[in-house]
Amino acid sequence: MVEVKKVKRSENYSEWYNNLVKQADLAEHSAVKGCMVIKPYGYAIWEKMQAELDRQFKETGHQNAYFPLFVPKSLFEAEEKNAEGFAKECAIVTHYRLKTDPDNKGKLMVDPDAKLEEELIVRPTSEAIIWNTYRDWIQSYRDLPILINQWANVVRWEMRTRLFLRTAEFLWQEGHTAHATKEEALAETKQMLEVYADFAENFMAVPVIKGVKTENERFAGADETFCIEGLMQDGKALQMGTSHFLGQNFAKAFDVKFVSKENKKDYVWATSWGVSTRLMGALIMSHSDDEGLVLPPKLAPIQVVIVPIFRKEEEKMAVLEKAREYANALKSKGISVKLDDREGQSPGFKFAEYELKGVPVRIAIGPRDVQNQTVEVARRDTKEKQVMAEVDLVHKIEHLLTQIQQNIYQKALDFRAENITTVNTWDEFKNVLENKPGFILAHWDGTSETETKIKEETKATIRCIPLDSALEEGKCVYTGNPSKQRVLFAKAY
Amino acid sequence: MVEVKKVKRSENYSEWYNNLVKQADLAEHSAVKGCMVIKPYGYAIWEKMQAELDRQFKETGHQNAYFPLFVPKSLFEAEEKNAEGFAKECAIVTHYRLKTDPDNKGKLMVDPDAKLEEELIVRPTSEAIIWNTYRDWIQSYRDLPILINQWANVVRWEMRTRLFLRTAEFLWQEGHTAHATKEEALAETKQMLEVYADFAENFMAVPVIKGVKTENERFAGADETFCIEGLMQDGKALQMGTSHFLGQNFAKAFDVKFVSKENKKDYVWATSWGVSTRLMGALIMSHSDDEGLVLPPKLAPIQVVIVPIFRKEEEKMAVLEKAREYANALKSKGISVKLDDREGQSPGFKFAEYELKGVPVRIAIGPRDVQNQTVEVARRDTKEKQVMAEVDLVHKIEHLLTQIQQNIYQKALDFRAENITTVNTWDEFKNVLENKPGFILAHWDGTSETETKIKEETKATIRCIPLDSALEEGKCVYTGNPSKQRVLFAKAY
Repeated sequence: MVEVKKVKRSENYSEWYNNLVKQADLAEHSAVKGCMVIKPYGYAIWEKMQAELDRQFKETGHQNAYFPLFVPKSLFEAEEKNAEGFAKECAIVTHYRLKTDPDNKGKLMVDPDAKLEEELIVRPTSEAIIWNTYRDWIQSYRDLPILINQWANVVRWEMRTRLFLRTAEFLWQEGHTAHATKEEALAETKQMLEVYADFAENFMAVPVIKGVKTENERFAGADETFCIEGLMQDGKALQMGTSHFLGQNFAKAFDVKFVSKENKKDYVWATSWGVSTRLMGALIMSHSDDEGLVLPPKLAPIQVVIVPIFRKEEEKMAVLEKAREYANALKSKGISVKLDDREGQSPGFKFAEYELKGVPVRIAIGPRDVQNQTVEVARRDTKEKQVMAEVDLVHKIEHLLTQIQQNIYQKALDFRAENITTVNTWDEFKNVLENKPGFILAHWDGTSETETKIKEETKATIRCIPLDSALEEGKCVYTGNPSKQRVLFAKAY
Repeated sequence: MVEVKKVKRSENYSEWYNNLVKQADLAEHSAVKGCMVIKPYGYAIWEKMQAELDRQFKETGHQNAYFPLFVPKSLFEAEEKNAEGFAKECAIVTHYRLKTDPDNKGKLMVDPDAKLEEELIVRPTSEAIIWNTYRDWIQSYRDLPILINQWANVVRWEMRTRLFLRTAEFLWQEGHTAHATKEEALAETKQMLEVYADFAENFMAVPVIKGVKTENERFAGADETFCIEGLMQDGKALQMGTSHFLGQNFAKAFDVKFVSKENKKDYVWATSWGVSTRLMGALIMSHSDDEGLVLPPKLAPIQVVIVPIFRKEEEKMAVLEKAREYANALKSKGISVKLDDREGQSPGFKFAEYELKGVPVRIAIGPRDVQNQTVEVARRDTKEKQVMAEVDLVHKIEHLLTQIQQNIYQKALDFRAENITTVNTWDEFKNVLENKPGFILAHWDGTSETETKIKEETKATIRCIPLDSALEEGKCVYTGNPSKQRVLFAKAY
């Protein structure tokens, strides 16, 4: 498993990433073009992400529900911008039966008699099917707000795919809320952006910039798209989550009205927000190194691995007994521990395997450790090793896990700080983009035209208009036209 | 919400069920034929089921993973029996793009240029895609066993659908394991049957009969299908879960071989097992009554509801304060509590609502209760009310929840005992089937032919050959041919 050809991160980031995803047993390509298999270790990390996000969604008053996988074409096309945005990349069910192929023994063929009257679109996102349902749920302001989230699979027929980052089918959550006022819907949109930012920074240990998308980059059907943008180690940006203020667009498309407290009929206000298995890509690309994954303790399926070391049979019992004692003590504090007592694999082999898998803390115990009442503790992030006395070991390990979580975040934060460049001229812009990958803060004249031209010339896009950026008079780096605020550019995944 | 036309359970079970699912906010039909929307309250129950099942799967050594939604037709047809079993009811993706309809402004149409070279089947079950993947994962006995579970949606294009019981799309888990020996695979099949039976009885409070399916009723592609069968209140059986011993059928279809310890090449042995949102139907149909749902405490999203009662403003503060105190005390013991302090709804309205929703315990607190340091406690299952002193209240409520869980199970168990009839002649068989719905234990000659004839004449099927039934010489009720064991017949969902 570990003996695969190594490509260094610094040599070819893209190949390094692909190899890592496969070698660390996170995911692989499937027999279905563009669809991935998420392997148990990868899925275990996703489950940890889900659990924490789900907790935060519920804490902010949301409930889970489930809506159909399919969207009838007539509903799909109801919100025109949304439909236009997804029409070119959707899987379409046209038939509901196979039959024996008379010309090919043992083979099946689509039964032409089983053609659907109306085609079904495999959901690329669920606004249409959900707002068609909300129409029956909402009559009065008393029925509002509706605060619902769904964990689901969605399909977008992407041509160029990449494990976790861009796949034809992916797993995600999509929140869909309905409100009586614009203000409340906007507040919800921003609240969920904060939830995402908190999760990214405090659990994934990935610092993010919160901002608003330009019109070019907005979700199809939204009035405003808020986002969190992370910076990967190769200097490219990754959109990690979006929260959309949908205005009354879907309410109008699906005729969802309510009677207000003042007894007036009005269209309902909407938001939607989502993060996906793409976050797995962000997690991997933010922290990992040439030895493998580096996982923040809060999302690591195994937080501590214990490797017992012995040569002679008479050493084995004492070492294993100690190892089990430590494992139980750590587990009793809620730390997830794996005791790897496999025989026939050398300690060195095991060390390499857990480095590859990003386990934050490794404890090694040999006969001398048992004698001295010590253990050897290695941390994955800095690769530092230290001998620790067993006195108060659990507490020390707990503390170490906290430190590692903080250190991984700080490292990513420092990296980002070094890789945000403020530029004022077009030459500077192109020069930085060429020679120093990362975010660029520059003035922009606010037009889609300019944005498109910059993208065509440099492949850089406006990642967002940062929420915390100060107003500042300036001139667009491309056109020289006046600008009131710097925006964030980067090449992006 | 509560003011819907009431149909009594005894009058029309089927209509009573449909109404209950909608009125208790569990699920509803969607705009997609045969697909349901699972509403938040229904989904919350499903989440409780998932959490416990997932815990038990992990405890028995399984890990979760995720495989693609789509199965290419060539893989789908590889295991012939399996393919034949599902071919007639599967959704087929044939195109991957929509385009603007030139003849209909604002409408979309399937783009004929975006036809897939190979059609994709929306998974009705995942053996094919998974065993095609396992081929690359398995070389040697060291790679075995593989113990994987997947939580997913599947689609079976059913013509007659019913909320939760039979829907075109449903949610489920499907375990797919790979083993080096037949014995190990059989042991796994039986282990998971036990997990399902334990879950049904100790969490859902539904007694089940464990058995083996006849060839007619076996899963397409299995060598042996084990099942748990529950008895609903109308005397019809419901298959609640199945665990399949797949032999080497899928390994042969997908050429999955391994090198054994003895250095021999052999095909891998397989199992698969699943339960679905159909369990929601079983839960509803096993316990509920004319007032609504009756939920076993272990699966109730709200275990205790507290309804404060007051008329005058000066009573309000004292009552609410007490209510909050109790709510917090109960929550601190891990009991899920809802304090319903909504104003503008009468206590009577609230009582009816929580009865409809099956909340196991209701606590009402009025001004006199505050004075007397008492509360009124009502249990949903027996509808008994009692006044409880607040001394040691949390402990008493915990005890009551345990009692309710047991009582619901016992009631279902008693009902089943009364509705299993042993018959020895064909007249008896038909007579019982007509006049006393439930399970029938009868001798059968072991042939598919007889089973089919009985089904055609009476609509009764063999639910299973019970695992615990004693061998007993007898004569088939239909043909008079010799039989060695009674089997379980019933009309079924």
